[in-house]
Amino acid sequence: MTKDYRVLIDCRDEKGLVYKISKAFYDFGLNVEKNREFVDAQNGKFFMRSEVSGKFDAAALESELRSVLPEGAHIRLVEPRPKRIVLMATKESHCLGDILIRHEAGELEAEIVGVVSNYDTLRSLVERFEIPYVCVSHEGLQRAEHEERVLEALSRFGSIDYIVLAKYMRILTPEFVEKFEERIINIHHSFLPAFIGANPYKQAYDRGVKIIGATAHFVNNNLDEGPIIAQDVIPVTHAMDWRQMRNAGRDVEKVVLAKALKLALEDKIFVYANKTVIFD
Amino acid sequence: MTKDYRVLIDCRDEKGLVYKISKAFYDFGLNVEKNREFVDAQNGKFFMRSEVSGKFDAAALESELRSVLPEGAHIRLVEPRPKRIVLMATKESHCLGDILIRHEAGELEAEIVGVVSNYDTLRSLVERFEIPYVCVSHEGLQRAEHEERVLEALSRFGSIDYIVLAKYMRILTPEFVEKFEERIINIHHSFLPAFIGANPYKQAYDRGVKIIGATAHFVNNNLDEGPIIAQDVIPVTHAMDWRQMRNAGRDVEKVVLAKALKLALEDKIFVYANKTVIFD
Amino acid sequence: MTKDYRVLIDCRDEKGLVYKISKAFYDFGLNVEKNREFVDAQNGKFFMRSEVSGKFDAAALESELRSVLPEGAHIRLVEPRPKRIVLMATKESHCLGDILIRHEAGELEAEIVGVVSNYDTLRSLVERFEIPYVCVSHEGLQRAEHEERVLEALSRFGSIDYIVLAKYMRILTPEFVEKFEERIINIHHSFLPAFIGANPYKQAYDRGVKIIGATAHFVNNNLDEGPIIAQDVIPVTHAMDWRQMRNAGRDVEKVVLAKALKLALEDKIFVYANKTVIFD
Amino acid sequence: MTKDYRVLIDCRDEKGLVYKISKAFYDFGLNVEKNREFVDAQNGKFFMRSEVSGKFDAAALESELRSVLPEGAHIRLVEPRPKRIVLMATKESHCLGDILIRHEAGELEAEIVGVVSNYDTLRSLVERFEIPYVCVSHEGLQRAEHEERVLEALSRFGSIDYIVLAKYMRILTPEFVEKFEERIINIHHSFLPAFIGANPYKQAYDRGVKIIGATAHFVNNNLDEGPIIAQDVIPVTHAMDWRQMRNAGRDVEKVVLAKALKLALEDKIFVYANKTVIFD
Repeated sequence: MTKDYRVLIDCRDEKGLVYKISKAFYDFGLNVEKNREFVDAQNGKFFMRSEVSGKFDAAALESELRSVLPEGAHIRLVEPRPKRIVLMATKESHCLGDILIRHEAGELEAEIVGVVSNYDTLRSLVERFEIPYVCVSHEGLQRAEHEERVLEALSRFGSIDYIVLAKYMRILTPEFVEKFEERIINIHHSFLPAFIGANPYKQAYDRGVKIIGATAHFVNNNLDEGPIIAQDVIPVTHAMDWRQMRNAGRDVEKVVLAKALKLALEDKIFVYANKTVIFD
Repeated sequence: MTKDYRVLIDCRDEKGLVYKISKAFYDFGLNVEKNREFVDAQNGKFFMRSEVSGKFDAAALESELRSVLPEGAHIRLVEPRPKRIVLMATKESHCLGDILIRHEAGELEAEIVGVVSNYDTLRSLVERFEIPYVCVSHEGLQRAEHEERVLEALSRFGSIDYIVLAKYMRILTPEFVEKFEERIINIHHSFLPAFIGANPYKQAYDRGVKIIGATAHFVNNNLDEGPIIAQDVIPVTHAMDWRQMRNAGRDVEKVVLAKALKLALEDKIFVYANKTVIFD
Repeated sequence: MTKDYRVLIDCRDEKGLVYKISKAFYDFGLNVEKNREFVDAQNGKFFMRSEVSGKFDAAALESELRSVLPEGAHIRLVEPRPKRIVLMATKESHCLGDILIRHEAGELEAEIVGVVSNYDTLRSLVERFEIPYVCVSHEGLQRAEHEERVLEALSRFGSIDYIVLAKYMRILTPEFVEKFEERIINIHHSFLPAFIGANPYKQAYDRGVKIIGATAHFVNNNLDEGPIIAQDVIPVTHAMDWRQMRNAGRDVEKVVLAKALKLALEDKIFVYANKTVIFD
Repeated sequence: MTKDYRVLIDCRDEKGLVYKISKAFYDFGLNVEKNREFVDAQNGKFFMRSEVSGKFDAAALESELRSVLPEGAHIRLVEPRPKRIVLMATKESHCLGDILIRHEAGELEAEIVGVVSNYDTLRSLVERFEIPYVCVSHEGLQRAEHEERVLEALSRFGSIDYIVLAKYMRILTPEFVEKFEERIINIHHSFLPAFIGANPYKQAYDRGVKIIGATAHFVNNNLDEGPIIAQDVIPVTHAMDWRQMRNAGRDVEKVVLAKALKLALEDKIFVYANKTVIFD
C-alpha cells in the first residue's frame, strides 16, 4: 500500500548529505514530492524536510538513513494524521473561537481532544462544538497544586501531541513545561522581544509605538523567551488608547496563532538553539 | 496677498475648542483646506492642525486665537517654506543617499544645507550633489571635545530647522541634544523598543525573530527612547544570517526615515508625553 | 438624560462649515468627543462625522444644522445601538464562522437576526449559536423565483440594517440590490479590480501574481464594481497552487470582511461617486 | 583554484532528479552551500538552483549533468560576476536614482554601463555618478526609427545582461523585446493585473481602491502582461488624490524594482509559462 511520509532530518553538516539522503529515497523507490533544506553554516548544522510517497518499510528506511548520516542525527518519519491537541484558555474567546471554527471547517490537521480553562466563561462556546470542557479554577490554590489538577485533567484526555495556549493567562512552571517540551504553543500579544510580561498593549500605548504585533512561540522555562514560530504586526496610531490597540491586536493574535499551529501540525518546524527553522 | 498657513494648536481640552478656533478662521475670512483634531481624553489634552489660506495678518490671528483658547495654549502659525536641514552620517550610504535623491527630485520641502560625518567615506557621494560636506573625525578626541567641533561645524551652516541622523553611529550627549530639542530625527535599525543599543540585527538574529523593523524617532536624553515618529517592518526567515537581515533592513530604514522626515518638514507632528501625535 | 450620538453630514462644500456645525454643537451644549472631516476639493463636497454627547433634542439639533448648512445637505443623527444584520452564505464557513465568533465575543455592534443560505451545509454551525438558519435552495428555480423566496425569508426577520454576503456565491439581480441600497456588504476573494468574476484564485495563479488579496465592498448593480470599503493582501509564491492560494486567502477574506462590517456598524462610511469616505 | 558556481536546472520532472544531481555534485567533490527545488506537479516540470563551490571543470560537470538528466533539460552554470546592465528612463528620477545609490553602495552585483533616456532631464543626476548618459529623443520620429536609434546607442555599450526600465514611459515593439528576451525588467506602477495601461494611479483613484501597488516584471510582447517577478503594496485612503497616490507609490516602485533586479542579478529567477519561479 502506498503511504505518504514526512521525513525530518537534522544533524551535523557534512559534504554529500543531500546526495546520501536522496539516494536512500531513490533506492527505496520513493517519489519525492517536496524537499526543503537549510544549512546553518555558522553552527555546522544541517536540516532537511522531505515529503515522500511509495510502498516501503519505514523502519528499514530509517535504518538505511541512519547508516549513511553522521552520528547523532535526528531522524523522524512522520505519517500524516490528525494530531491530538488540547486548547487552554482563560476568558478571552477570540483565539479559542478561531481555532474551533477552523477545526470545524476542516482547516486543521488536528483533533481537539479537549479544552482546559481556569474559568468557566468559555464553556458554552466550547460545548456548542461538542468538545469536552474542563474548568480547573486556580482560586485559593497554590500554583503547584493548580498545575497538578490541570495535569490530572489533561491526563484524562489520553495522549496529547500539542497544547495550545489560546490566551491562557497564567504562567506555567518549569516542571509543567518540561513535561511537554517543544509541544506547548503560546500566543503572546506583542511583537517579542518588545513588551515582555503583563499587559503588553498598555506598555505599547505608553511607549507610543506606531505598530503592534503578536508572537507565537514554543514555551520554555523563561517567560516569553521560547523559540519564536510566527509573528505579525498591524499599524496603530496616537488616536487609539490601549483598549483599542488590544481590540485591534486580536485579529493579529488569532491569525498568528493559527499559522504557528498549522506549521506544527504539518511537521514543518525544527527547534534549534532556541530558534526555529520553518519549512513553510 | 493670499497666503497659506499651517496652524498648529495644542492646549488643555475644554468644550467648544473647535467652535472657537473655526470661528476665528471664519471671522478672518480664511479658507480652511484641511483640519485634523485629536483629544487625549485621559490627559485632557487637545491637538489641532489646520491648513488655511487667505489674506490676513498672522499676528492678529494668533492674538485672536490666544484670546479664545485656554491659558498656556501652544499656537504655531507656520508658513510653508523649505526647512533648513543638516544630515549627519557615519559610513553607510543608504539613508543618506536616499535623502539626497529625494531632495534632488524635489520630494522634500527642505534645503540640505550640509552634511557632517565623523568619517570621510561619504564625501564623494555628497559632493556629487554640490552639498557641503564636513568631516569631523572623533579619533583621539573625548566625546565632549568632538561634539564641540561638530557644533562648531554646524554653526557655520547658519540656522538649522532639523538635524537628521542618517545612520550617524555615535551617541549624542544630553548637552548636545538639548540644543536641538525635538529637532533631531534618528533612524534606529530595529523595531523599538525591541533591540535597544548596539547591533540590533545581530540581536534580532540571535533571538530568532521572524520580522525585523526600523524606527524613526526624535532624539532625547535616553538612548533609543525618544518619541517615535514612524516604524515599519519586513519579514525575515531562519535562512538569513544577521548580515542578510541588515541588508534587507536597509530598505525599511530608508523608507521609514524619509517618512518621518517628511512629516516633520510638513509640520504634521506634535510631541507630547514622550509620544507623537501624527496628522498625516 | 445624557445621550451619545453620531452626527454624519455630507453636503456641498463652502466656507465656514466646520464653524457652523461646531457652533450648533456648542449652542446645544454638547460635548464633542471626536470629529473627522474631509473635503473633496475636486468635486466640491464636504464630509464630517462627529461623536457628540449631552442632553439635547435630536430633532431640534437636526433642524438647527439644516438651517445653517447648504441646501440638499444630508444629515444623519444616529444613536448607537446594535444594528440588525442578516448573513448570507453558501457552503464555505470561514467568513460566516468568524462573524459568529466575533458576535459571540461581543466584538460587533450588531444583532445577527438570521442566516440565509442556498445550501443546508452550514446549518449545524449556525444553529450551535442559536441563530435562525433558513435554507433557500436555488435548485430547479429561475433566478427571479429564487430571489423572491430569499426576500420572503428575509421579510420574516423583521427590519434589517445590513445584509452581509459572507461568501454567498450567487449573483444578485439589480431588483434585489436596489431594495437594500448601500446596505449589502460583500467579500470578494481578490484584490479588486484585479480578477473580477469567477474563481479569482485560479486567475491569480494563472497570472503568476506574487500577492493576493480580498476586497469588501457594497454591492451595486455591476458585478464586483461597487464602492470598496476595505482591502488587504498577503504574499504568495510560485510554490502554491490555486487551492493553496485559496486556503491562504481565507484569513485575509475574513479579516477584511469583519473590518468592513465594523465600519458599517459604527457608521463610519460615506458612499459617494461609487467610492467610500472612511473615518476609521 | 576554488570557484563558486550557481547551477540552475529546469527539465521534465521524473523520479530521482535530486539524487542524480546531488550525486554529480558529490562525485565532483563539490561543497553544496544551498539548494532550492520546486516541482510543478501539474505540468510535470522540475526546477533546481544550487550554489556550489570547489575545484572542478565546469564543462565536465555540465556534461555529466546532461548525461543523467532528461532530454531537453536546461542547465546553466553561472559564475557570479557583476552583470552588465543598462538603465532606461524618461523624466522621473526616483527609481533611477535609487539604483544609482544602491550601485554606489555596492548593493548590486552589477556594473551600470550606461543610461538611455528619451529626454535630457536626468543627465545631470546620472553624470554625477560618472555613468554615460545617452539621450535619444523620440520627437519627430516614428516608433521604429526611434527604437533603431536606441538600439544603436545600446550597441555602443558592449554586451548587456539586463535592461532595466526604470520608469521608461514608452512602449517597446515586439521587435525590440525579442532581441532581449527575458532580459528586460520593467516596473509598472500598479498592482498588476489591476490597472493595465496609462496612469494607473488615476485609475486607482477613480476606482476608489484602499491599497495601491507596484509590479516588476519581464517585458514580453503584450503590454504589462509579462512574467511577474515582484510586487508590493501600500495602503491609501479617500483623503489622497491621485497625485498623492502617485507620490506615495514611488517608495513602493523603487523598492519593488530593486528587489526584482537583485533577484535577476543573483540568478534566482526561472521563467516558465509566463510566470516566474523565484528562489529567494
